[in-house]
Amino acid sequence: MKKKIVETKLYKINKKVKFESGVEFGPITVAYETYGTLNENKDNAVLVIHALTGTAHAACYNSEEDKKPGWWDDLIGEGKAFDTNKYFIISTNILGGCSGTTGPSSINPETNKPYALSFPVFTIEDTVKVQKELLDYFGIKTLYAVAGGSMGGMEAIQFTISYPDMVKSAILIATTSRLSPQAIAFNAVGRNSIISDPNWNNGNYYENTEKPDRGLSNARMIGHITYLCEEAMYNKFGRKLQNKNHYDFNFDIDFQVESYLQHQGQIFVDRFDANSYLYITKAVDYFDPAKKYGSLQNAFKDTNAKFLVISFDSDWLFPSSQSKEIVNTLMQLDKDVSYCEIKSSCGHDAFLLEYEVQSKIIKSFLNEHIKEKSFEI
Amino acid sequence: MKKKIVETKLYKINKKVKFESGVEFGPITVAYETYGTLNENKDNAVLVIHALTGTAHAACYNSEEDKKPGWWDDLIGEGKAFDTNKYFIISTNILGGCSGTTGPSSINPETNKPYALSFPVFTIEDTVKVQKELLDYFGIKTLYAVAGGSMGGMEAIQFTISYPDMVKSAILIATTSRLSPQAIAFNAVGRNSIISDPNWNNGNYYENTEKPDRGLSNARMIGHITYLCEEAMYNKFGRKLQNKNHYDFNFDIDFQVESYLQHQGQIFVDRFDANSYLYITKAVDYFDPAKKYGSLQNAFKDTNAKFLVISFDSDWLFPSSQSKEIVNTLMQLDKDVSYCEIKSSCGHDAFLLEYEVQSKIIKSFLNEHIKEKSFEI
Repeated sequence: MKKKIVETKLYKINKKVKFESGVEFGPITVAYETYGTLNENKDNAVLVIHALTGTAHAACYNSEEDKKPGWWDDLIGEGKAFDTNKYFIISTNILGGCSGTTGPSSINPETNKPYALSFPVFTIEDTVKVQKELLDYFGIKTLYAVAGGSMGGMEAIQFTISYPDMVKSAILIATTSRLSPQAIAFNAVGRNSIISDPNWNNGNYYENTEKPDRGLSNARMIGHITYLCEEAMYNKFGRKLQNKNHYDFNFDIDFQVESYLQHQGQIFVDRFDANSYLYITKAVDYFDPAKKYGSLQNAFKDTNAKFLVISFDSDWLFPSSQSKEIVNTLMQLDKDVSYCEIKSSCGHDAFLLEYEVQSKIIKSFLNEHIKEKSFEI
Repeated sequence: MKKKIVETKLYKINKKVKFESGVEFGPITVAYETYGTLNENKDNAVLVIHALTGTAHAACYNSEEDKKPGWWDDLIGEGKAFDTNKYFIISTNILGGCSGTTGPSSINPETNKPYALSFPVFTIEDTVKVQKELLDYFGIKTLYAVAGGSMGGMEAIQFTISYPDMVKSAILIATTSRLSPQAIAFNAVGRNSIISDPNWNNGNYYENTEKPDRGLSNARMIGHITYLCEEAMYNKFGRKLQNKNHYDFNFDIDFQVESYLQHQGQIFVDRFDANSYLYITKAVDYFDPAKKYGSLQNAFKDTNAKFLVISFDSDWLFPSSQSKEIVNTLMQLDKDVSYCEIKSSCGHDAFLLEYEVQSKIIKSFLNEHIKEKSFEI
């Protein structure tokens, strides 16, 4: 089958955007991809939002040489859950990222050097504001749906709160309205790992040959432990040794799980910027609409979206109880909300793996929604 | 009340001990403390074994100036669970440790330099062998009980297997017969954190002013996350900010949980050796009697001890299911085993915190045992 090629495009927000911290920052370039066609009424747009270290490349291939398609290719395409025959799907790289959108590794036009730590600390609200600018550029006033897993789900939540009249439906997958102290702790140790790498050099490493790869790799390894659950680890590795039957009695890798984590850490540093990791995890830690608006009820009170909430029973990073809290709050507010807890042994990673059941649920949610709104496609 | 002072003593094993790896290593100095009096028959000895980073100092005070007593002082003393009026309690620092017993930071008499990585990789079986040497020195042929939490519990298990005729009873608390892949993963990332600290210098840092403190501190932070459970973290910190009401919008500490972990990391480096951390976690990862003896049944088949197994329902590092596996195996073998799962919100740390209920259970287990054996005190 011929590979469907899509290009990552850039849109420049040629003004300053006011961040939650009070800082005004700009210009900001947003990397994005689109799939499908925007209809005449411009009301068939679906915004899909990536997780912690994702990119705008959500579906198709960027080139004939690409071995893997985008991160949600199983869900986005003709006849798939996010059906490109019906919807105009937009995916952007997050503010502060390192895959096209302006972040700490981008060149500050005023100094001609990378921003590094002069990049302002931002919040999930700010990341959503930046995506809204892109939608404005497209002339999109109505978002048929916003969907995201993990951090992407937080942004989807924030979209329904920040732009209540714009968002018609929201699909929140394996997400939370605020990190548990344990999840904050994991992020904090990951950041500490980067910051304590001497090559981090207070964020100024872009012109050096030695980057804070060891710190970043370690942070990624910690993250990966939280993405898998105990059962997934047993299924994947158990206590199996790496290419041997006996212990080595040294400090090389003995177990397969060690080898897996080390590999994940190593390949990560080639595609991700250490400073971006600091900024984005901080934004995730800060996300807490209940704190900002007084309560979760208050946060959701003016939303007009129809919600679909999906969680996975083996996800211990953002456990089902956190999804249920969102669902219960929405029900108390008499909002239109559907909830599904999917049985899975994949842990938090399930949102990127359990496609079949997710496809069905999302497809039916979006179809029902079409009927109700009788929107034109 | 006057502080009860105890001295940490040293015993030198003046020969080579054969390790599981095949290496013969010695001499080995063992740091130990004792509480109570060894009876004439020398059959009232109880060996208590510390967890990952503990010391021989299990009870009383080492000096008038000490603010805190030993790590199990709530359980060891006159009238306490390990009653010094009845038992002769022995506690040693683990082989490879850094609190008196020979470890990688000790001076190699052949080179007059610290062993560093020339120290042999050892196993839990080896640590038990070393403790057995100390018991031999005391002329103790019967161990009335061996007791330990976490890693100490693994050593207690190994004691019943290595010296089946010596051990009359074993108290296994918050422990496991083998680490899950997730627990191995946490240890591996901790080790990686140390090894990737440039100050680690392939283990040769003892003569340098800069030690691998950042790596070791990070490893300790990771460990601490696993010692607390989600509920304990909520109770202790929640999402409370550290001495402020608003986010700082920088990379300083925002949350109390971050401050706690950083503090734990910082104080740890003053008392622990990075190389010891590598060796001891490796021994813990390697512990797997089912692998060594073919099955857990086979491992326990010749044991003669009466067992008490205690686990805590909120312990996710060594969950109750792992204790139950031990209990079920012992029951299948028709061994004398009692099991108690204690409700607690303290996670793995519970074995160092939930004294009241543990005291009662251990006291009654040991007393019953005395009656049965009608041993002389």
